[in-house]
Amino acid sequence: MIYLDNAATTCPSKNALSFADKYNYEKFFNPSALYLGGIEAAKDINVTRDVILNSLGVFSKDYEVVFTSCGSESDNTAVFCAKKRGVFLTDKGEHSAIYKSYLELKQRGLSTVFIDLNKDGSVNQEKLFDYIKNNKVDFVSIVHVNNETGAVNDINFIAQKIKEIDRSIVFHSDGVQAYGKIPFVLSPYVDMYSVSAHKINGLKGTGALIKKKSLKISPLIYGGGQENGLRSGTENVFGIKVFEYVIKEHFENIKANYSKVSEMNNYVRENVDKEIFHVISSENASPYVLSISAKNLRGEVIMHSLEEYGIIVGNGSACSSKNRFSRVIEACGYKKEILDGVIRLSFSHDTELNDVMFATQCLNVVAKKLKGIMG
Amino acid sequence: MIYLDNAATTCPSKNALSFADKYNYEKFFNPSALYLGGIEAAKDINVTRDVILNSLGVFSKDYEVVFTSCGSESDNTAVFCAKKRGVFLTDKGEHSAIYKSYLELKQRGLSTVFIDLNKDGSVNQEKLFDYIKNNKVDFVSIVHVNNETGAVNDINFIAQKIKEIDRSIVFHSDGVQAYGKIPFVLSPYVDMYSVSAHKINGLKGTGALIKKKSLKISPLIYGGGQENGLRSGTENVFGIKVFEYVIKEHFENIKANYSKVSEMNNYVRENVDKEIFHVISSENASPYVLSISAKNLRGEVIMHSLEEYGIIVGNGSACSSKNRFSRVIEACGYKKEILDGVIRLSFSHDTELNDVMFATQCLNVVAKKLKGIMG
Repeated sequence: MIYLDNAATTCPSKNALSFADKYNYEKFFNPSALYLGGIEAAKDINVTRDVILNSLGVFSKDYEVVFTSCGSESDNTAVFCAKKRGVFLTDKGEHSAIYKSYLELKQRGLSTVFIDLNKDGSVNQEKLFDYIKNNKVDFVSIVHVNNETGAVNDINFIAQKIKEIDRSIVFHSDGVQAYGKIPFVLSPYVDMYSVSAHKINGLKGTGALIKKKSLKISPLIYGGGQENGLRSGTENVFGIKVFEYVIKEHFENIKANYSKVSEMNNYVRENVDKEIFHVISSENASPYVLSISAKNLRGEVIMHSLEEYGIIVGNGSACSSKNRFSRVIEACGYKKEILDGVIRLSFSHDTELNDVMFATQCLNVVAKKLKGIMG
Repeated sequence: MIYLDNAATTCPSKNALSFADKYNYEKFFNPSALYLGGIEAAKDINVTRDVILNSLGVFSKDYEVVFTSCGSESDNTAVFCAKKRGVFLTDKGEHSAIYKSYLELKQRGLSTVFIDLNKDGSVNQEKLFDYIKNNKVDFVSIVHVNNETGAVNDINFIAQKIKEIDRSIVFHSDGVQAYGKIPFVLSPYVDMYSVSAHKINGLKGTGALIKKKSLKISPLIYGGGQENGLRSGTENVFGIKVFEYVIKEHFENIKANYSKVSEMNNYVRENVDKEIFHVISSENASPYVLSISAKNLRGEVIMHSLEEYGIIVGNGSACSSKNRFSRVIEACGYKKEILDGVIRLSFSHDTELNDVMFATQCLNVVAKKLKGIMG
């Protein structure tokens, strides 16, 4: 199998599972318990907090880590729990966890604004800054790396500009597709940042919201008061320790991985048949995500044809795979002939170039064959 | 080590971890993906839904399972997402996940009612039904098994009575300490029921809300539309499949386990030194939880003294262990001399009677020694 849907989920790291195994055996205690085993479990997940802050180049005097169950929960906490009223602004390229949360805000009678995208899926900065200069805005969420096109928003720059216009605005970014992949240091202008473990070879069921200590938020989940009162529920110690391990693995090699993945990405860009495929992702995009479209073909059909060769690719975001067209690619300005044929290749540091070469060849063969049938 | 804090968390089942292991290796796919691996993952967690419904004696035509990240999330979903306005009623013996959610409802300006407890921690049914007869109520949540005293509320009977008074009331029960332990079939009067995996040897990070299909609820977490649109976020397939295994393990032996644990519970009841200890849990309580109090001693001190013998017990709910007194035991009507000395022994089906006998002996020795020091 050649797995090229790493933006949907990744295969958990065997080493990380072995490392964290003890939290399912001799160290299975509840971190809220007051005996030694419980106290140690609480300390052990505090180590993970430090690893996360360190990976983003920030310090525990300024930022804190709230463990959540997934990137979606982190995003929802940011959107619903920092500001209770006001104007909420985002862009049209957000993951559903932000986008649908904004639709819910709107449903509740709050003001929401969706800024247009550039052709590559990044937010149109001119329109963004113009809007904020001319209108009162209270909360902004801009995705770091677009999960469908890989477009990178320079969120540190955007956050700084926004705060220069109005420093009372709360700025959040969904970093799920960036974290552990794009070399990056969180700037002091970013108030909250969402990350997820299973996108970097951790386990499903573990995420975190990194937030400025000075920013007060309410919980999304109330109860025993875990996570400094910000997220109740017994901490998923095993998942958190797996996360810690894969963070270290990823950040130690982040630049080498980036180069390796860039090479694979470039190979596909250069070698897909240009008479059939349109490359949607820009050359400045994250190399981990590459969206292409086979004009006048159906992405889903290509996906299933590739499956027969043991090649797994995504069509659009797995999270919204029930809709025919991708809302995000549509917002990039593409029409039906492109929208229908979108497939997404997404790489991992452990993807092999040979496999990508073979997959590219199959892509061309499969698409040509389907064109023939269609024509 | 003799671990008697199984109401806080349990040691995950090795067999369950082995069974579910493949979901971290060859079957790690995202259940939202449209290729075979994704579709199979979605089917595989549907099997778990059926196992859960079956364990409660209900059918998929009437009930559905919403996977969550924990019991607290299930409880919060029930409280915040079924009714948006009206009068919310509960009792003073609820787990913090319900109790603190109700305090938040109150904070938001909604009406909340907290019904008094009986001495054993069960809800005072007379007061409960009286209130509902004489006042408009929209939502009721009554815990199935009290996590501190083990008191069992007959939630099927309570739900039926309530619905006879006003069938428009939505009825929820937190079943976290009951599920897999107390033989029980969900009656059609119960609209929602919360369960958690890590209390029955599953993993932390997995829970579920079982709900009537006819009851419309909104999501607590918005996004990709997983869980039939009711809970977004990539499903924790590994945790869910571990849960499935331990559910089967527990329900196959639920009666034998109940008897075994009853014997251990009775041993402690009969053999703790009655000159020192007051037994708080009634004889009708769940045998899995036994709260006792050493009059005029501190529960925390006893707990730490027992640790030196390798015996782990809880003092009150691990989730609210930062407060000196237990809110729940106080609501049972106890005063300071009892409240200070509370410890909770909680058993698992794999606890051994010999260990419980030794622990009881140590309890008596430790308490007598502390009394001596104090006196």
